[in-house]
Amino acid sequence: MDEESGDRWVVDIALQPPSIDDNTSDSGRLEKALAPELKTDSIAMDLKLLKLLPERLRKWDYACRCIVFRDHGKWRLIDVLDPEGGDCAAGMAVDLGTTRVVLRLVDLATGRTLSEFAFDNPQDEAGPDILARLHYAEKREGRQHLQELITGGINRAVGDVCAKAGISSEQVYLMAVAGNTAMTHLFMGLPPQWLIREPYIPAVNSPGAVRADELGINISFCARVFVFPNAGSYFGGDLISGAYYAGFHENDEVAVLVDVGTNAEVLLGNRQWLVACAGAAGPALEGGVSEIGMTAGPGVIDSVRIDPESREVSVHTIDDMPARGICGSGMIDLAAQLFLAGMVDIRGRFVPEVCGDRLKEIDGMHHFIVVFGRDSAEGNDLTISQADLDSLIRSKAAMYTILETITGYVGISFEDISAFYVGGTFGSFINPRSAISIGMLPDLPEEVFHPLGNSSVKGAARLLSSRQAAEDIESIRGRITYLELNVNQDFMNRFSAARFLPHTDAARFPTVAGAVK
Amino acid sequence: MDEESGDRWVVDIALQPPSIDDNTSDSGRLEKALAPELKTDSIAMDLKLLKLLPERLRKWDYACRCIVFRDHGKWRLIDVLDPEGGDCAAGMAVDLGTTRVVLRLVDLATGRTLSEFAFDNPQDEAGPDILARLHYAEKREGRQHLQELITGGINRAVGDVCAKAGISSEQVYLMAVAGNTAMTHLFMGLPPQWLIREPYIPAVNSPGAVRADELGINISFCARVFVFPNAGSYFGGDLISGAYYAGFHENDEVAVLVDVGTNAEVLLGNRQWLVACAGAAGPALEGGVSEIGMTAGPGVIDSVRIDPESREVSVHTIDDMPARGICGSGMIDLAAQLFLAGMVDIRGRFVPEVCGDRLKEIDGMHHFIVVFGRDSAEGNDLTISQADLDSLIRSKAAMYTILETITGYVGISFEDISAFYVGGTFGSFINPRSAISIGMLPDLPEEVFHPLGNSSVKGAARLLSSRQAAEDIESIRGRITYLELNVNQDFMNRFSAARFLPHTDAARFPTVAGAVK
Repeated sequence: MDEESGDRWVVDIALQPPSIDDNTSDSGRLEKALAPELKTDSIAMDLKLLKLLPERLRKWDYACRCIVFRDHGKWRLIDVLDPEGGDCAAGMAVDLGTTRVVLRLVDLATGRTLSEFAFDNPQDEAGPDILARLHYAEKREGRQHLQELITGGINRAVGDVCAKAGISSEQVYLMAVAGNTAMTHLFMGLPPQWLIREPYIPAVNSPGAVRADELGINISFCARVFVFPNAGSYFGGDLISGAYYAGFHENDEVAVLVDVGTNAEVLLGNRQWLVACAGAAGPALEGGVSEIGMTAGPGVIDSVRIDPESREVSVHTIDDMPARGICGSGMIDLAAQLFLAGMVDIRGRFVPEVCGDRLKEIDGMHHFIVVFGRDSAEGNDLTISQADLDSLIRSKAAMYTILETITGYVGISFEDISAFYVGGTFGSFINPRSAISIGMLPDLPEEVFHPLGNSSVKGAARLLSSRQAAEDIESIRGRITYLELNVNQDFMNRFSAARFLPHTDAARFPTVAGAVK
Repeated sequence: MDEESGDRWVVDIALQPPSIDDNTSDSGRLEKALAPELKTDSIAMDLKLLKLLPERLRKWDYACRCIVFRDHGKWRLIDVLDPEGGDCAAGMAVDLGTTRVVLRLVDLATGRTLSEFAFDNPQDEAGPDILARLHYAEKREGRQHLQELITGGINRAVGDVCAKAGISSEQVYLMAVAGNTAMTHLFMGLPPQWLIREPYIPAVNSPGAVRADELGINISFCARVFVFPNAGSYFGGDLISGAYYAGFHENDEVAVLVDVGTNAEVLLGNRQWLVACAGAAGPALEGGVSEIGMTAGPGVIDSVRIDPESREVSVHTIDDMPARGICGSGMIDLAAQLFLAGMVDIRGRFVPEVCGDRLKEIDGMHHFIVVFGRDSAEGNDLTISQADLDSLIRSKAAMYTILETITGYVGISFEDISAFYVGGTFGSFINPRSAISIGMLPDLPEEVFHPLGNSSVKGAARLLSSRQAAEDIESIRGRITYLELNVNQDFMNRFSAARFLPHTDAARFPTVAGAVK
């Protein structure tokens, strides 16, 4: 998924110096020189840059390194640099998550990652979930406060990331922000109230490149912030970024992208057509729901293995630190392993006689001890409750039912899907085998599945390396048909069948049936 | 030269309200509705406007009056207004003269002129002529000061013009500024030093539409200021505005536009090709040179008649007020009448025996009394000196020689010219008959000549009434070949011959020869 170096947003150019016979203006001369390279006859630039251009061109003997960008078919010159200066020109990819914001600093000339960083979304102060923040933002002051929280957080993080990479934040010329529709509205200070009221209308679908200074983002003086487009209130730029990273603008064969978080989001199609669908999946897979649920970070359990014979539980934690909690992919692993070891039945209930001393009762509810206190970071048992497990099963059932619905809508079967991209903004990698075992994903050969990790920040980083990017992304957005879920009796029947492990119709999961203890 | 009303920058539009089946965003919905009308699929808008759009659309039941603009092929939504509000949406045309700034307020919906205003360019404080100001502007503080002087002056004038028309300056959504290349550079705060050093390179040729707030112009919050393009340091936006007003983008036949001020500027061609030429003409035709020279205004002499028998001098003043001075067109009239009455000879010398008591000597130089003190506004004789007359003759000779040069360059004769547009930013109308009599313009039938008055402000006003304007203007600019005057011996010979009244070769002016007393 790498682009050729000739496809970057950095262009070195040498101009013919002006003469009496060619009195074209400085900006016109630069425009003409860039025209064949960029295949355009019009390149806009901010007045602030135009004021500096004549002196810079003369100082550098009519050669310069240009930072350019294109969206909505329009080219823009972001800055001109000393062609001999050797200074890094950087771009910042941002995954604007509701809970966590991830930044990746990219060298615009080479596409290389320079450094990475993540921080908790400071809007949490006004409410941990999207809905609370949107209500808070209905008032103008609330909206302004939320925008200041997130731009302030990003500005601090940009400073940190740049310091780590040994550059100044003024060397960041482009930023690409991928987030869900609500988060990008709050980031831009747009009124969000109509996102959550029928018929759920965003203020904008394709914001394109916005001036950094108008957003309050402190990077280069004429920098642009590309805000990923959405395909409606419930299908946001983070998903479109993931679809772009997965290559939905270039795939001939039918593929699926799934993203599981608070919502189960599915995109199905190829470079000819796309159908999207999203449904509430419950928050089981995001941090903060089960007592020990958290987003990925050191000491967080991201995979679980239970020996089917001894039923011994072994966990892997990020950075191999003592366990503190469990992330979404760890939860899926855990549920799969519990089921395969016979410690949970097909209804998703803990089986006390098999769980043994791993099961304890708190307030009349079964809790499974994932890590005993003696092995945990803080000395307490790390447990998940029956309710946590039920919540996870609702999520997986929602995902499966949506996949069933969307393939049924376009009249294809799971076997027609050539690639199954599994994204997720909750920070770690889902094990497809585990997801199949609990009946969250269909029972297809493992090579069909491609876990993407944080596809949102990766798509944003890809945009920073390809001149075709904004067009490719818009072509994805423009082709999406959003399928409104019709939650009728038929849907509820399918959902109920999917609430079993892996499903009431075991024939759908032939490879799972044989593995269950 | 009027456009159809369907061609305005104001578009009334009614949208299909959103529904579950059509969840396009508010801005996308508006874009789609405007698309067939504007024949584009992309319309940009400022973030400031986008923030207000959702509430406004809902308040007005998905109908609105849109103010749009297009330049460099790109459409922009400037504002959305209440479709039932009935408020005027206005545009401001500005002729940005070195000496005098002229404003014309236009109703964008009808194209009607609402009011007019003129004021002296306050940059005069830093120097009366262009060169002094450009030197002052080489330092950043000087540049900033000059920009503040002119934008401050325009802001005050906008307030006055709007008050006269009974609207607020926030109802001005578009401004169109036509000025020479130096004046527009100073207006935009661009470094002007390379305009006046070989090879005379502007910072920009086609600035297009700039944000009003970035220029310090206080009109509507997302307003754009269209700055007319130039075809080099010596062929500015005022002339291109005049050429647009005269219709050089649509003429099949070959026409000429001449503009006489400090420079004699000539444009020759049709909608296929254009050649431009400019040469120093001396400042004789602008205010402030001869002691009584001034730009048009009440009490300024704009035409002169001398009875060839009695040699009685009668003058016409603007608004019929007592005479205070004389403007450029008055000077040309005066020189023509003096020559035709035999009071000036073919060398341009006052003939004392014919001038009689109208001639007096001051500091050893002849001065001709145009208005005796008893009839003047301030009780003093209004006189022009032999030096003033010499200066005018140099100007007219420059104009004629340039016309000879440019027609010779493209290989046509004066008779091939179907229309001769006479512009002038010095505020009044040149009488073509007088200009022929002194040999400034060629001896062609009077119906060929079309005096335009202030064609710069008129072209700017025309832009405010036509959606095709920016493209038409750019098509004029793009076709101009600038002919650098080669001031060689041949040119000097032709110039010397043209310094006689009307010319050494009297056969070129058959209709003048017979009229001289």
